[in-house]
Amino acid sequence: MATTEKASPRDRLLDAAARLSYQDGVSVGIEALCRAAGVSKRSMYQLFDSKDAMLAASLERRIPWYDALLAHPDPETATPRQRILHVFERLEQASQDADYHGCPYLAVLVELKDPEHPASVIAREVKAGLAARFRADAEAGGARDPELLARQLVLVFDGASARAGAKVEHLGDGLATTTVTVLLDAAGMD
Amino acid sequence: MATTEKASPRDRLLDAAARLSYQDGVSVGIEALCRAAGVSKRSMYQLFDSKDAMLAASLERRIPWYDALLAHPDPETATPRQRILHVFERLEQASQDADYHGCPYLAVLVELKDPEHPASVIAREVKAGLAARFRADAEAGGARDPELLARQLVLVFDGASARAGAKVEHLGDGLATTTVTVLLDAAGMD
Repeated sequence: MATTEKASPRDRLLDAAARLSYQDGVSVGIEALCRAAGVSKRSMYQLFDSKDAMLAASLERRIPWYDALLAHPDPETATPRQRILHVFERLEQASQDADYHGCPYLAVLVELKDPEHPASVIAREVKAGLAARFRADAEAGGARDPELLARQLVLVFDGASARAGAKVEHLGDGLATTTVTVLLDAAGMD
Repeated sequence: MATTEKASPRDRLLDAAARLSYQDGVSVGIEALCRAAGVSKRSMYQLFDSKDAMLAASLERRIPWYDALLAHPDPETATPRQRILHVFERLEQASQDADYHGCPYLAVLVELKDPEHPASVIAREVKAGLAARFRADAEAGGARDPELLARQLVLVFDGASARAGAKVEHLGDGLATTTVTVLLDAAGMD
């Protein structure tokens, strides 16, 4: 956010949309978004067709950050099991942040309740990407049913992130990785 | 909802708040709530201090319905394992409904992002009640670590309900019960 002064109005709007919708929910008003970005409503509507489109673009823009957050630092030498566990270790770390409100993509899906919303489309793609990554690792690690294991892992990921984000669970003691270890073992993962 | 005509303004408002917030999110407007309930805004504010208080009351009022939904029909003869699995079978059934948007209590927590909100307080109590029920069954069933198992089960419950509600997962093939069976077995549950 230190670069806000130099960022373009478009980028400032996308930053504000990502930050405020994560913090306050997708119902955050256009006025608040424009004020936070230091951009007039008129300029906003020249840059984006609608608030919905701006929200979708803000979510899309964060995908590289999200992927990097969960990626193993040394994926080539890590085993598939280590790569999977690393995702949950990162989730456990991220959830310790006081500003953590869960996975931003799941939150958007839960809040919008509309699979057709452009932001829901982006969020669904991101969650499908995570499941695909788990599936590839499950297959590489010799899981008996890679598709089932991948679905179970995303279930735990979303349950853990939603509960930690809602402050009804603490992942600091390794609850997510402990649970995932049980599932990996049962699936016959190396 | 067939009883709406005979219901008191208070009950009509609580029904509308429960229905519309579940369907459209907690940001649903007071005008829409009053319109759906057939109650004036003035009357609403005579009955409730605020929309927040009305939302909290509507969630509290649904607790018996929620508990009954997940309760085993014959808890005395069912084993603890059967009682736990029944909760997830009911979740899998409920998620088949086109109007299913996930667990209403988790959704409220995700949407409000404010643990101090009166509706969050109610939602947190309900989720804690579910965890306590799992814990009691885990203990009765001889789980090695009943507290850990209960936390894992709520993780799966919330992950499955959030994903099914967001239409990014289908539980119709028994994904939740399959996952829970793995956790029950690993915990040494009878």
